[in-house]
Amino acid sequence: MASNDDTLGSLPDPNVFSRMCSSRDVFHHVTGRWGALVIVALSENGEPMRFSELRRHVDGVSDRMLSQTLAQLEREGVVVRTVHSSIPPHVDYQLTELGNKLSGPLSDLKGIVEGELGGILQSQEAYDKAHA
Amino acid sequence: MASNDDTLGSLPDPNVFSRMCSSRDVFHHVTGRWGALVIVALSENGEPMRFSELRRHVDGVSDRMLSQTLAQLEREGVVVRTVHSSIPPHVDYQLTELGNKLSGPLSDLKGIVEGELGGILQSQEAYDKAHA
Repeated sequence: MASNDDTLGSLPDPNVFSRMCSSRDVFHHVTGRWGALVIVALSENGEPMRFSELRRHVDGVSDRMLSQTLAQLEREGVVVRTVHSSIPPHVDYQLTELGNKLSGPLSDLKGIVEGELGGILQSQEAYDKAHA
Repeated sequence: MASNDDTLGSLPDPNVFSRMCSSRDVFHHVTGRWGALVIVALSENGEPMRFSELRRHVDGVSDRMLSQTLAQLEREGVVVRTVHSSIPPHVDYQLTELGNKLSGPLSDLKGIVEGELGGILQSQEAYDKAHA
């Protein structure tokens, strides 16, 4: 997919299975290592979060990875970064309408993984025994 | 989370936001670079797929990454690998019940990203102009 919107009409439908389609990269970012957790964190929190809050909540993410993830999500229109001209000024992040749309299925995935964890751990154990 | 199922009861609830919780790794695998696409491919196909079919469908994945992804998903009980003793013998892969559960929200994510791609590309363009 070209990034020029004027030409979109003449291109094939977006398809995440095609490595030439821009939707592939977007799909990777929103389901990526940190992107998915940031989106779910903002959604569960319900109100805008500061960088430091997100960093605490998404345990294990580094400053660098969180900055990079937020910039990527902002670029794709999933997250809005707002600079408040308070004293002292502060910056926070919230989901856009698109971000909210994405958060639904991502929260569902989180719920399934957490809810099925017992069975998943048993499956891992059985697999490791069979492949030892 | 310990991987010993007997101790599960005394541990805190699974939480993907905690890097110490096994659910974090599982969440990363099912939403990972190739895991998510493999799950959606198997779900859309509706019937078991061979390695070569999956490789063609998930454009851009290498043999090595696909093997590794399938082994991880098999280990977690998301995918079943079946060896058919036909002549010649062949191997195929299908989703388990857990895999089917996960495929719902993953297909939803795919649909949102593909459906919103026009707006996402516009957002990327605006971001790049503002940050040039």
